Amino acid sequence: MKIVVIGGVAAGTSAAARAKRLNPDAEIIIFERDSDISYSGCGLPYYISNIVEERDDIIIYTPERFEAKKGAKVKAQHSVEDILVDSKEVIVKDLLKNKEKKLKYDKLLIATGASSIIPPLPGVELDNIFSLRNVHDADKIVDFIEVNNPKKAVVIGGGYIGLELTESLLEQNIDVRVVEKAEQILTNFDSDMADIVLEHLKEKGVEVITGDGITEFKGEENVEQVLTESGKELDCDFVVMSIGVKPNVELAQKAGVGLGETGAIKVNSRMETSVSDIYAAGDCVESTHLLTGNPVWIPLGSTANKQGRVAGSTMMGVEGEFKGVLGTAISKVCDLAVARTGLTFAEAEAEGYEVVSSVIKSGNHSGYYPNYNKFTVKLIVEKDSGIILGAQVIGDAKFAGVDKRIDILVTAIHNQMKASELIDLDLAYAPPFSIPKDGVMVAGIVADKQRNK
Amino acid sequence: MKIVVIGGVAAGTSAAARAKRLNPDAEIIIFERDSDISYSGCGLPYYISNIVEERDDIIIYTPERFEAKKGAKVKAQHSVEDILVDSKEVIVKDLLKNKEKKLKYDKLLIATGASSIIPPLPGVELDNIFSLRNVHDADKIVDFIEVNNPKKAVVIGGGYIGLELTESLLEQNIDVRVVEKAEQILTNFDSDMADIVLEHLKEKGVEVITGDGITEFKGEENVEQVLTESGKELDCDFVVMSIGVKPNVELAQKAGVGLGETGAIKVNSRMETSVSDIYAAGDCVESTHLLTGNPVWIPLGSTANKQGRVAGSTMMGVEGEFKGVLGTAISKVCDLAVARTGLTFAEAEAEGYEVVSSVIKSGNHSGYYPNYNKFTVKLIVEKDSGIILGAQVIGDAKFAGVDKRIDILVTAIHNQMKASELIDLDLAYAPPFSIPKDGVMVAGIVADKQRNK
Repeated sequence: MKIVVIGGVAAGTSAAARAKRLNPDAEIIIFERDSDISYSGCGLPYYISNIVEERDDIIIYTPERFEAKKGAKVKAQHSVEDILVDSKEVIVKDLLKNKEKKLKYDKLLIATGASSIIPPLPGVELDNIFSLRNVHDADKIVDFIEVNNPKKAVVIGGGYIGLELTESLLEQNIDVRVVEKAEQILTNFDSDMADIVLEHLKEKGVEVITGDGITEFKGEENVEQVLTESGKELDCDFVVMSIGVKPNVELAQKAGVGLGETGAIKVNSRMETSVSDIYAAGDCVESTHLLTGNPVWIPLGSTANKQGRVAGSTMMGVEGEFKGVLGTAISKVCDLAVARTGLTFAEAEAEGYEVVSSVIKSGNHSGYYPNYNKFTVKLIVEKDSGIILGAQVIGDAKFAGVDKRIDILVTAIHNQMKASELIDLDLAYAPPFSIPKDGVMVAGIVADKQRNK
Repeated sequence: MKIVVIGGVAAGTSAAARAKRLNPDAEIIIFERDSDISYSGCGLPYYISNIVEERDDIIIYTPERFEAKKGAKVKAQHSVEDILVDSKEVIVKDLLKNKEKKLKYDKLLIATGASSIIPPLPGVELDNIFSLRNVHDADKIVDFIEVNNPKKAVVIGGGYIGLELTESLLEQNIDVRVVEKAEQILTNFDSDMADIVLEHLKEKGVEVITGDGITEFKGEENVEQVLTESGKELDCDFVVMSIGVKPNVELAQKAGVGLGETGAIKVNSRMETSVSDIYAAGDCVESTHLLTGNPVWIPLGSTANKQGRVAGSTMMGVEGEFKGVLGTAISKVCDLAVARTGLTFAEAEAEGYEVVSSVIKSGNHSGYYPNYNKFTVKLIVEKDSGIILGAQVIGDAKFAGVDKRIDILVTAIHNQMKASELIDLDLAYAPPFSIPKDGVMVAGIVADKQRNK
């Protein structure tokens, strides 16, 4: 059994490790265009902020260590140029030697990930315009900051990555302006919740410009100014673009592998594509939303990891199923933890649900215990059934237990619990950890009351 | 509508507040034997350790504030001596004036709580033998420490309260020996998990003696020595007894209110007792275990709070149901958070389940992010169905996210999830908060594998 894996980050390495474990005799080879494999993409902002001091720390395995530990072969700086579906071969290019060769596969996994979107604006080719997707991108930013000691940055895009980067740059004592084309930052939150983060950023001295797109970058060799649709001219020493990502599907498309309506590769729950013996997993595939049943493209490390594991199983003929996602995400933005799952109020309405909601502030633990703190939870509930459709939680990143509350709600939504049933949960109470009637329960009670109004 | 509530701590005040809110015209009166109402019993160890500096901080409402805020009358230092079921009256004694009077009720709530068990051992009447159940008990310990600056304590009982107290006394630079009659501390944990806590206590310099009961207290006026079954003579400046509690059911029993097989008051899910118009809630009642369906007596503040709320509703003719408990509990023992829910391995076997289990160590969040820490999770799973029956989680109290993991598992068990389904949860991942495949998921996978062995 010969397995070829295209892409060696989260999904690719998970799949290879799983497959090798299930069948130690299988010949498994990973091709990765980059020189790094198996790194934590989500950790890159912390490498830039210098919270993670060593570059190596965000690299889980080097190619050598992965081969030694997991038994799959790794060819870094090798690009798969073509998939020959009929002959079940791939054409692989050694990027260092600039040489191509053909290789047979029995099963193929496409785990080509996603890339930053760089819009073709005037001046976009200027120096010191960065994006952040892989370790090399981060290296460039880290090196630039170290060498040039810049004072002013413009971050384009007010999503998770943009805001995590904002935090990273603030940690390096750089003034940051964030420009977001949409009317609010964090567009996958309801605006009332996103406003909490906006206020926090302002307190941190960040200028946030919303509802304004970029028209041009100006400068000689280096970028010096960012021009916006509303006519703003933003001086800067450098720019980081984080307006979004797109799935890397060109190779799959060329091979006739079907894409879904989101534009990412379509797979079933076994991670099988439309072409037999070709599987796909990670940031290049779309998933099923567990609430709506609709295809969604929400590329995240945790999802990639799980999908890779499933593909590793099913390629080996072992049972495995990736059922879908709830769109859960969490992010640290300066001192805040910012989390969401399921549908926002706006998303739920757009999906045709009739919904009610509650927004509650609650203590993280007993008021008399040190580090008392409040978090805000918003609950979105179907009016008719009372079933919870979504939740957003924001609070202090260190103390407020935002991650706990969102994960309780993830588990509740996964099980189609009603808002009124949250109070029935026998959650753990002791003064250092919680309060007798946790905020998620109160949010449930309040949302349930809204249903009968 | 006239409602009499006997007992003014968690259940009594919750019920009174809820009932008044539902029916502002109702006449509601709380009688409390003690001078304090509405205090956090669970907070008492932190008052002793001086983490909570002001006594007032653990008192949520004084009688005056409760009356002003919630609109129910409060009579502290009033003891209900008798319930006259036929005439629907209570005989109340004003403990300060030593005067009794009769009072009519339409609905009565018994929320008499529980008391410390003090075994009738020789010398138990000596001075400086304390227990900890209410604020006055805590006052005595606090005053004793302040005045006498003691060096050595013996804590009798290695349950939550005993170990929380141990932490409190260590914080006051007092040497602590813990004596536990059972073969292990924390008898509601499996011994492999309790051993983690045992090791931690030893590291903190605590001598823990298990499998040894107390036979006698020796001393002139003050206790000076504790003698044990095995012949040990433990010198000490004072003793704290925390061998357990018993439900306060004498009043109920005298009135013909039925007790359950646990010895606590039997109630239905509406918190109704066997006598019409008499309700009971809090530490004096037994609950249904949500997994086994058996009656259990697990007196906890969070449960009392919820039961009180339900009683407040149902006394007012409003729908309300307390479905039962999973036996969830969490405790801080020095630097550790120690949590459990559902059944232990031993408990599950005793209930007749055929079970398998997994014990996993997992990172709290990404290894490269500050305050990386590991927690241990044990999962108990029914062999045949794969359904999770219980979980125990132990790890660093500040950083390991023990409370998060136990609450995810509480919610999973509540919804009868299988161990193999935990991996399907779309839990929130970002480096400061978690890892892509959380320890609870890995524990699920490993336990599931055990089923097929």
